[in-house]
Amino acid sequence: MAEIVKAKLPFEKSEMSKSEAKKFFKSAKYKLEIIDELEGDVVTIYKHGDFADLCRGPHIKNTGEIKAFKLLKVAGAYWRGDAKNQMLQRIYGTAFADKKALEDYLKLIEEAEKRDHRVIGTQLDLFSTMEEYGAGLVLWHPKGARIRDAIETFWKEQHYKNGYDILYTPHIGRSTLWDTSGHLSFYKDSMYSSMDIDGQDYYIKPMNCPFHIQIYQKTVHSYRDLPLRWAELGTVYRYEKSGVLMGLLRVRGFTQDDAHIICTPDQVSSEIKEVLRFSLSMWKAFGFTDVKAYLATRPEKAVGEEAQWDRAISALKDAVEQEKLAYELDEGGGAFYGPKIDLKVKDALGREWQMTTIQFDFNLPERFDMNFIGSDGKKQRPYMVHRALLGSLERFFGVLIEHYGGAFPLWLAPVQAKILIISDAQAEYAKKLMSKLRESGLRAELDDRSEKLGLKIREAQLQKVPYMLIIGAKEVEASSVAVRSRNKGDLGAMEIEKFIEMAREEIRSRKSEV
Amino acid sequence: MAEIVKAKLPFEKSEMSKSEAKKFFKSAKYKLEIIDELEGDVVTIYKHGDFADLCRGPHIKNTGEIKAFKLLKVAGAYWRGDAKNQMLQRIYGTAFADKKALEDYLKLIEEAEKRDHRVIGTQLDLFSTMEEYGAGLVLWHPKGARIRDAIETFWKEQHYKNGYDILYTPHIGRSTLWDTSGHLSFYKDSMYSSMDIDGQDYYIKPMNCPFHIQIYQKTVHSYRDLPLRWAELGTVYRYEKSGVLMGLLRVRGFTQDDAHIICTPDQVSSEIKEVLRFSLSMWKAFGFTDVKAYLATRPEKAVGEEAQWDRAISALKDAVEQEKLAYELDEGGGAFYGPKIDLKVKDALGREWQMTTIQFDFNLPERFDMNFIGSDGKKQRPYMVHRALLGSLERFFGVLIEHYGGAFPLWLAPVQAKILIISDAQAEYAKKLMSKLRESGLRAELDDRSEKLGLKIREAQLQKVPYMLIIGAKEVEASSVAVRSRNKGDLGAMEIEKFIEMAREEIRSRKSEV
Repeated sequence: MAEIVKAKLPFEKSEMSKSEAKKFFKSAKYKLEIIDELEGDVVTIYKHGDFADLCRGPHIKNTGEIKAFKLLKVAGAYWRGDAKNQMLQRIYGTAFADKKALEDYLKLIEEAEKRDHRVIGTQLDLFSTMEEYGAGLVLWHPKGARIRDAIETFWKEQHYKNGYDILYTPHIGRSTLWDTSGHLSFYKDSMYSSMDIDGQDYYIKPMNCPFHIQIYQKTVHSYRDLPLRWAELGTVYRYEKSGVLMGLLRVRGFTQDDAHIICTPDQVSSEIKEVLRFSLSMWKAFGFTDVKAYLATRPEKAVGEEAQWDRAISALKDAVEQEKLAYELDEGGGAFYGPKIDLKVKDALGREWQMTTIQFDFNLPERFDMNFIGSDGKKQRPYMVHRALLGSLERFFGVLIEHYGGAFPLWLAPVQAKILIISDAQAEYAKKLMSKLRESGLRAELDDRSEKLGLKIREAQLQKVPYMLIIGAKEVEASSVAVRSRNKGDLGAMEIEKFIEMAREEIRSRKSEV
Repeated sequence: MAEIVKAKLPFEKSEMSKSEAKKFFKSAKYKLEIIDELEGDVVTIYKHGDFADLCRGPHIKNTGEIKAFKLLKVAGAYWRGDAKNQMLQRIYGTAFADKKALEDYLKLIEEAEKRDHRVIGTQLDLFSTMEEYGAGLVLWHPKGARIRDAIETFWKEQHYKNGYDILYTPHIGRSTLWDTSGHLSFYKDSMYSSMDIDGQDYYIKPMNCPFHIQIYQKTVHSYRDLPLRWAELGTVYRYEKSGVLMGLLRVRGFTQDDAHIICTPDQVSSEIKEVLRFSLSMWKAFGFTDVKAYLATRPEKAVGEEAQWDRAISALKDAVEQEKLAYELDEGGGAFYGPKIDLKVKDALGREWQMTTIQFDFNLPERFDMNFIGSDGKKQRPYMVHRALLGSLERFFGVLIEHYGGAFPLWLAPVQAKILIISDAQAEYAKKLMSKLRESGLRAELDDRSEKLGLKIREAQLQKVPYMLIIGAKEVEASSVAVRSRNKGDLGAMEIEKFIEMAREEIRSRKSEV
């Protein structure tokens, strides 16, 4: 590579007919296969030095422009990914315009690998995915579940504060429900096959909406009751090909932080503003501040009247503009049943993740004939908005693990303080300390093994515990603790009460350092 | 009835062969059917006056012993419950040894009807069950879900305090999982039919255990890690015949407050004591103090060694005795896989409900080959205990509604305080008041309709709201609220802060009056 770069070999483009190209590459049997599959009769070739290859281009002018490169790995790969074929050698490399850009990229890759949520998930014993007994299904281990519980508790508290009610609905429903909703016609590929109960077909739910609508339909609603904001942490099951399943990011069962807003036409604009504001405050609470919006408008084939679409789209635009949010417009990119905003958030490594969805629905209110009694005493059709702020708890947790690299802020950390004793003489004091911390609502653990302190510290570090409380004879004497912070290092000896106060304040403020 | 009682007609028992009985009842075609179905050849008949009927007995000596009776209702009933058959008249009545006993019983029936959770569930808009779209599946409406959330929050807090970890696991698993667990052989009738995913059969879970065991199997456990106490609010689906479905008490989908305790043989006794103590404290918190235990021991067909059963049964006995709990022994009544204690609790009407189960399992640890490394470095089989304290949230909620007659204690009430204004002039003050209450963590609602106060009070009463805060000109003037308690009546005017303090203390103490 170094020699080729030094030689500043120009890249030369040429075109050939397929039959010429086949003569040119006659000794390369795989290339002949590729040429046969190309569309049209003209093939482009790039050459530099004595190397020529099929390529559409474009290329740099000459190899001298390669200012920084790195060969990343060499790996065997079967031709066309089929183990029955011969194996080829594949060389992976990357090149940048300067050394700095290459180094930044390599650091990002390295950091991303270290932060891989599957690796950290195992190291910290947070979760696992089933394989043999159900690919793409997630088991939340105690420590991961502790974090999920903290997320759910916060999520509920915030939803109550923002005027939401919470619902619980079943995971299965009869085929007639999915017929009425239309899912069996337009969403069937993502649904699992039916179960038989007493000769009736039941489906496990891919979405929560039809159940929320059932609750809506149980009573007559007046315009005075609206807006309704109904949220549910609803676990849904959707089919994904086994090849695309990936850790927590692509799964077959996941818990949406779902909500449906049912409102009058007059309320649409303020409701959308509120839900966008709420989304952003939620992302901020978890330490994500770089958020971008993607607004998708009416596609050619669509249900609902033009006036509804216009009102909805302008509500979405007004909201992003009010929040001064950068946004891209995807003209015609909406679903057939309504326009939407998706939010993408950037994590600590600058990678963008698509998370939040705020989606109008002009379809289900029609299909289920949803009504409210207007101020004029007449039946009217409400607007309905689906929204998921975090998206799904599984995917969100995956992103959160990578964002924090497993070093969760105190309010989320499954173990907030680990007590380490220097010798068995401090065991009794340490136990009392642990009870005290737990009574104060802190998640404390005690390492009272007869191991060297250095080993205990190392293990607590690997577990990314926010605070280590080290207890020796001196601390017992002074009724104190020697505090070692994950972020700030050694904080010295501290009265127990003072540590508790400090930790509780840090939890209350949901301080987050990435 | 009165004449028959007055005549003091003696009940006379006689026996006949079936053929004699058939002659005797020759004009009663349904009795002939019954006689044909009776086992053995001898039939017993009771007579009084000129009335004779098939009956096994026993009876009172004569009709004069009937000191108090009541004919309750007359209803048509198809022979054998089949609408294709003829309809018979069924007369319902009840009799007691004295008037007082009869009156008490009639009051109980009346009270029970008023407290029917299905009736109250609709009146207070707490929940509904689906019919057309899935019989036996429960929809938790906002107010019911608010109570469930309060229950779940308390439940989790208590579980953490009692040394439990919480898990989340999927609702479906591959057939291979249920083959290994044995559910497909011994529990299939209660399971729904399978779904097909990529040519594999999946079942919706009737139990959470196999998933908890999967998490256990992900790592190697040492005796130092035990006991593990793993809890989950796991929603399971089980088949029930549609005829037996009943409100929240008999459903097809329900959320168990499940846990599995995995421990060493040495820990069995103290773990069982702890779990029983924990159960009782939980029942007390919800206002149930009358609890009785039912201990079921080894049946003839059973898995597991005798020594295991003995250890388990004596742990169960020790625990009930330590708690000085009344208990009945059901010799041989245990499941094939282990002995158990069931707890029955009495509600406010003195009715007994079977709720808690503490159940040993000698089967699953074998089937999944569960191990831990003992202090001797050798593999050992752990003990495993299933337990559900409340049983299921659905059934528990049904019982809770009937126990409280819908008048939930403050900590559970979906609306804790309702603000009622006398005229529109107080609307602004009332809104500020509501914000203040909500910021203090109270669930407050405002009735600012231009309706008469009397009507607003009546509606709040029907909704069984614990506190009404009535606001007139005087209260605005004095920055106070006139407080009306559901239980204690009029409490007079009060500073807002004082009311908040009082309410918060009542919530903290989880005070419960039935």
